[in-house]
Amino acid sequence: MKTLCTEQSPGRNRETLKLRAAALVITFLVFLFPAANGRAATLLPSWNDSPRRQAIISFVAAVTDPRSPDYVVPEKRVAVFDNDGTLWSEKPLYFQMFFVFSRIRELAPQHPEWRRQLPFKAVLENDRKALRKCGLEGLKQLLAASRAGAGDTEFAAAVRGWAARARHPRWHRPFTELVFQPMLELLSYLKDNGFTCFIASGGGVDFMRVLLPGIYNLPPWRIIGSYPETVYRDGAVVRLPKLAFLDNGPQKPVAIARQIGVRPLLACGNSDGDLEMLQYTAAGKGPRLALYIHHTDAVREYAYDRKSRIGRLARGLDCAAKNNWPVVDMKQDWRVIYPAEKPAAD
Amino acid sequence: MKTLCTEQSPGRNRETLKLRAAALVITFLVFLFPAANGRAATLLPSWNDSPRRQAIISFVAAVTDPRSPDYVVPEKRVAVFDNDGTLWSEKPLYFQMFFVFSRIRELAPQHPEWRRQLPFKAVLENDRKALRKCGLEGLKQLLAASRAGAGDTEFAAAVRGWAARARHPRWHRPFTELVFQPMLELLSYLKDNGFTCFIASGGGVDFMRVLLPGIYNLPPWRIIGSYPETVYRDGAVVRLPKLAFLDNGPQKPVAIARQIGVRPLLACGNSDGDLEMLQYTAAGKGPRLALYIHHTDAVREYAYDRKSRIGRLARGLDCAAKNNWPVVDMKQDWRVIYPAEKPAAD
Repeated sequence: MKTLCTEQSPGRNRETLKLRAAALVITFLVFLFPAANGRAATLLPSWNDSPRRQAIISFVAAVTDPRSPDYVVPEKRVAVFDNDGTLWSEKPLYFQMFFVFSRIRELAPQHPEWRRQLPFKAVLENDRKALRKCGLEGLKQLLAASRAGAGDTEFAAAVRGWAARARHPRWHRPFTELVFQPMLELLSYLKDNGFTCFIASGGGVDFMRVLLPGIYNLPPWRIIGSYPETVYRDGAVVRLPKLAFLDNGPQKPVAIARQIGVRPLLACGNSDGDLEMLQYTAAGKGPRLALYIHHTDAVREYAYDRKSRIGRLARGLDCAAKNNWPVVDMKQDWRVIYPAEKPAAD
Repeated sequence: MKTLCTEQSPGRNRETLKLRAAALVITFLVFLFPAANGRAATLLPSWNDSPRRQAIISFVAAVTDPRSPDYVVPEKRVAVFDNDGTLWSEKPLYFQMFFVFSRIRELAPQHPEWRRQLPFKAVLENDRKALRKCGLEGLKQLLAASRAGAGDTEFAAAVRGWAARARHPRWHRPFTELVFQPMLELLSYLKDNGFTCFIASGGGVDFMRVLLPGIYNLPPWRIIGSYPETVYRDGAVVRLPKLAFLDNGPQKPVAIARQIGVRPLLACGNSDGDLEMLQYTAAGKGPRLALYIHHTDAVREYAYDRKSRIGRLARGLDCAAKNNWPVVDMKQDWRVIYPAEKPAAD
């Protein structure tokens, strides 16, 4: 027997190698489809096992299990996420506004008229009170002016340059690191379960498309946002200094219908500006999940809702209570807020 | 030996089974990545081996070969395609207009005023001359009216119903079968090579999103088109009877910049309405491919260019000649025009 075994060994070794290769391939396939693996214990690891975490997991199970009466084909598994306050922080100001102020100062030498003209004057003089008085109209003007004129490459370089050097005034970290670790896990979890995730945010779309694809692992065309008037001129799409579309409130479902063309199964936001997006999602037939993130942790992040100037959540809390939408309590539900390590920022 | 073989057979059979499973998995992986398979002879099989086919293949090779100086990362491999006249026929009229006429007649009982009102009156009386006089403005009104009011489900049912029963007046086949087989192959070939393909068409976006995903194998959000004014109301996005955006000419690059956010590497069209999209594409840095489809086959399809009312190609032919853009000659370059078998329509 021993001799025979020895005789056969080259062939057997080859077969063993083949078996090992097969095992490797199978491991690789299992790795490709982690949903099928169903290790519930490691799902959403930065979430405490709260009713909100359970609501998410039950919902995903219901729409992805082919035997479930609520099963939804992958093509219809669309999820939409607000960005400011939902995927990353938004205090003391929307992060993009720090970029906008920096960019306005950078561009000021080319615009001597700004020294005498609100809201630009207020930015250049660092006059917060005057700036606040300019309200939403002032904000829209600044947003458009920060984008106008520059070509895609120049604008992307300006955004990346700012992101590399700017630091959050309280956390002293790059703004791009102040994303919510539990939400990064939720995005991955949905992707692993055949969902296509989109951002639907009030932020300027060109700004977001420079920074967010690398952070959230999605392509630029799955980011929907506010945009300026644009014209085509000599091979280029030129951005004019006037906002054409503010992606907020009832405009969010309008933009989602136009750009995605599928009513989402799941929507997640944190403010009254997201309410119509959540209502539009919830009003669809069959199972839907409308999810609010409630900022309740003044120590690890910020605590605000009904009376906040930025990220006000009042109508939304009432609507969620009335309709039994899960409201994530950041303090209770999240083990960690920000990633410990720097995420791969693009 | 025979006895030993018999003794070993249960184990060996199991191993043989495992080997077969491994082979199956490997076959499956090879099937998943056909680009790596590189069987050049079967690429674009419905294309004759013309300089145009060569231009496409060389371009794709240059941007996908990591050793090429023109290599482009997959995230930037965006391709845009016009639809009418580029991916399917557009004669004797844009196919959607057949649907629009049918829909206007269907809705007429709810709109008694249409009997006295152009362009509706012309449609209801089948008065082609009067209709032609209404021009582009009339067409825009009809397009918006055909979509207005209906919810997503009702509209999708109307489009599907029409597509199932309507037949092309010359070819007596469903309109959805009159897609160009060589272009279906080009879409697949690009997809296999890591490209993300989009439709950028003057057609109504909601109409296209019902029919095209099943034909071209792409999700609704990769279809860009014309759209009406919309408002959010009580959980629904309501389409108003007024066109907001006509996705044609210089508006095509504007919509591409807004919705995709990446300048395409490759653009393909067939009319002067696609010229700015091709120019925008060609004006990008590095390798780009701007491709025109020239309708030259009056027997198998249609022959038209400079003087055609629908699908006019005059400025485009001049620009292509000046810039050495490949111009596909349908008669010379395409072995077949339409698929022999019915494509999986949705």
